[in-house]
Amino acid sequence: MSMTSTNDDVVALAQRLLACPSVTPATGAVFAELEAMLAPLGFTVDRFIVGEAPDGPVENLLAWRTTGAGPHFAFAGHLDVVPPGAGWSSDPFAPDIRGDLLYGRGAVDMKGAIAAFVAALADLPDDLPGTISLIITGDEEGPAIFGTLALMERMATRGLRPDLCLVGEPTSSQRLGDVMKIGRRGSVNMWISVAGSQGHVAYPHLADNPIPRLVRILTAVEAEILDEGTEWFQPSNIEITDIEVGNAAHNVIPGRATARISIRFNDQHSGASLIDRITGLAAQEGGTVDARISGESFLTAPGVLSDIVGAAIRDVTGVDAELSTTGGTSDARFLSRLCPVVEFGLNNATMHKLDEAVALQDLRDLQSIYAHIVERALRLS
Amino acid sequence: MSMTSTNDDVVALAQRLLACPSVTPATGAVFAELEAMLAPLGFTVDRFIVGEAPDGPVENLLAWRTTGAGPHFAFAGHLDVVPPGAGWSSDPFAPDIRGDLLYGRGAVDMKGAIAAFVAALADLPDDLPGTISLIITGDEEGPAIFGTLALMERMATRGLRPDLCLVGEPTSSQRLGDVMKIGRRGSVNMWISVAGSQGHVAYPHLADNPIPRLVRILTAVEAEILDEGTEWFQPSNIEITDIEVGNAAHNVIPGRATARISIRFNDQHSGASLIDRITGLAAQEGGTVDARISGESFLTAPGVLSDIVGAAIRDVTGVDAELSTTGGTSDARFLSRLCPVVEFGLNNATMHKLDEAVALQDLRDLQSIYAHIVERALRLS
Ligand SMILES: [Zn+2]
Ligand SMILES: [Zn+2]
Repeated sequence: MSMTSTNDDVVALAQRLLACPSVTPATGAVFAELEAMLAPLGFTVDRFIVGEAPDGPVENLLAWRTTGAGPHFAFAGHLDVVPPGAGWSSDPFAPDIRGDLLYGRGAVDMKGAIAAFVAALADLPDDLPGTISLIITGDEEGPAIFGTLALMERMATRGLRPDLCLVGEPTSSQRLGDVMKIGRRGSVNMWISVAGSQGHVAYPHLADNPIPRLVRILTAVEAEILDEGTEWFQPSNIEITDIEVGNAAHNVIPGRATARISIRFNDQHSGASLIDRITGLAAQEGGTVDARISGESFLTAPGVLSDIVGAAIRDVTGVDAELSTTGGTSDARFLSRLCPVVEFGLNNATMHKLDEAVALQDLRDLQSIYAHIVERALRLS
Repeated sequence: MSMTSTNDDVVALAQRLLACPSVTPATGAVFAELEAMLAPLGFTVDRFIVGEAPDGPVENLLAWRTTGAGPHFAFAGHLDVVPPGAGWSSDPFAPDIRGDLLYGRGAVDMKGAIAAFVAALADLPDDLPGTISLIITGDEEGPAIFGTLALMERMATRGLRPDLCLVGEPTSSQRLGDVMKIGRRGSVNMWISVAGSQGHVAYPHLADNPIPRLVRILTAVEAEILDEGTEWFQPSNIEITDIEVGNAAHNVIPGRATARISIRFNDQHSGASLIDRITGLAAQEGGTVDARISGESFLTAPGVLSDIVGAAIRDVTGVDAELSTTGGTSDARFLSRLCPVVEFGLNNATMHKLDEAVALQDLRDLQSIYAHIVERALRLS
């Protein structure tokens, strides 16, 4: 199954994906390109579209190849990109090589990594038993309602359940290989509202000002110490991100006040436990809480998967990767329900920025690292 | 100088004033009417216009009559009215008598009282020595920048300084005569701002959230006890009337937060002393304060003037007037710099409302009360 034609060069593969506009939520051409790359490698490809506007439609691609009995290793990622914005030096969807860099929206986040998945798979030894799958969504950058979660349902109906999973998000920071993510904090937003009774400032006994009660709630929220951090996570953190009263009249006591808080939390908490906790604080002053959980936390405790990824990085680059849990959320929070998950990919310096670009050498090195990872994973007993 | 023609009937006088639209700031016809009423009574009338849009132009009327050596008593008030609003049962500027009530914008606040000034003056005994003046502005309901303050300058250049002053604001509450005001609280609005540094909620160490600091300032503000009240004033009061952050992005730590507070204060404080005090609290958390003083407090300690007004009310109505300092601000806060000032006038139940109306009998009783007050004031040694 080894293929070495120039069509499988990782840079050429990346260019083909970058040439397809795929602002989130993505469907169509970019998935056709990926299918065209995977089918010749013996993969069964299942593309399907779910959802309606405004959060959809979203295309997803599930691909798998089984070569005898053995472990199931999965690559996961996304083909959608954030909007390019104005001000690029070249067309963000006309990939352009200038010097040692390949420019295009998605170069590092994360079409470059998906090109490296494919290039790595094209070069594998023939004698690896087991299953390899690709779990690729068109909505990671958006609400992610119809993306990886839908892929996981599809996998369940097909009886596909990976033993190990690598998500190709751009985790490298200063140089390729310096950081992998073994977990992510969770995220929840809450709106704390206090209702009072409007009135005139000259007659406060006829009104009930909700602001002092909201201030007392926020004082209690600020005093909360959620935890001191863990071996792998920094302490969970609460930020008050907005307060809204909307009272333009100087002589009027307002009837309602609302604050918004954002909590980034580690694996000592769940979204629900935090909502309960803040609701209890708010209730002491008659306040109520609305909440939206953006994602739960996850942790893949250091072990076989992080060892494999770390060894592969060291072999190719000589770098010892840091095991990190910082940053925002990713689809790894969903996939971690199935099996150990580690995130590792390109340098994130230009991610979501103008003139997003990847070093050509990083693409080639990432292809090698991914190939080492698959080999080691499938050779596990 | 006694005149008893029907033209001087207090109801007819009130109707003439109510028929002139004079939404604040006022000029023109309504002042011409008042001048036409006062000139036949021997008053020198000085009308003048000051200010530019949007707070002006404002017309003011100063009238005075001196009959030998004696005390100087002043009536003060305003001919401007608040906008009528939609939904009146009859044209707000076509005075209409239905049953025992005279309807029209300004009926109680305070063209009715000004008609009672004139009617009282028309019926005075001839042997009263001293000076009587009228200090009438076209801007009490607006910003009051070009109103009573300009009249006071005009009086100073003419060497006119009253010994006692009655402001005809509608102070009566349940029935004519039940309340006079011997003072008013002051009012100041302040904007407390805290500047921080914007950032992403996932990286709070790279940002400086101003909200917790604002919350600590507001907690300190709420804990302030300005005073316990005095014999004549209720305790000074602070209300937090608004908080504004304006941060729509859930994942962003805002760079700035502002709260607005409104303080109603008694004669234990000045606007400046309160600004200093709040500025000191804000500074402890790096906050800054902008302020606008709407009015200083004033108190005319119970004495000769309140005794005269109280006796006149009792003689005419049998009611013992309460000496109050509650409610909003009035032009008495300016006039109190010159001499003792008491406010007394019609029932304020329909003030600033739709279908503002005055009882015909109240107009006649108020005329009698005002006449008693002038007589007693001018007979003081
Ligand atoms: Zn990504
Ligand atoms: Zn008034």
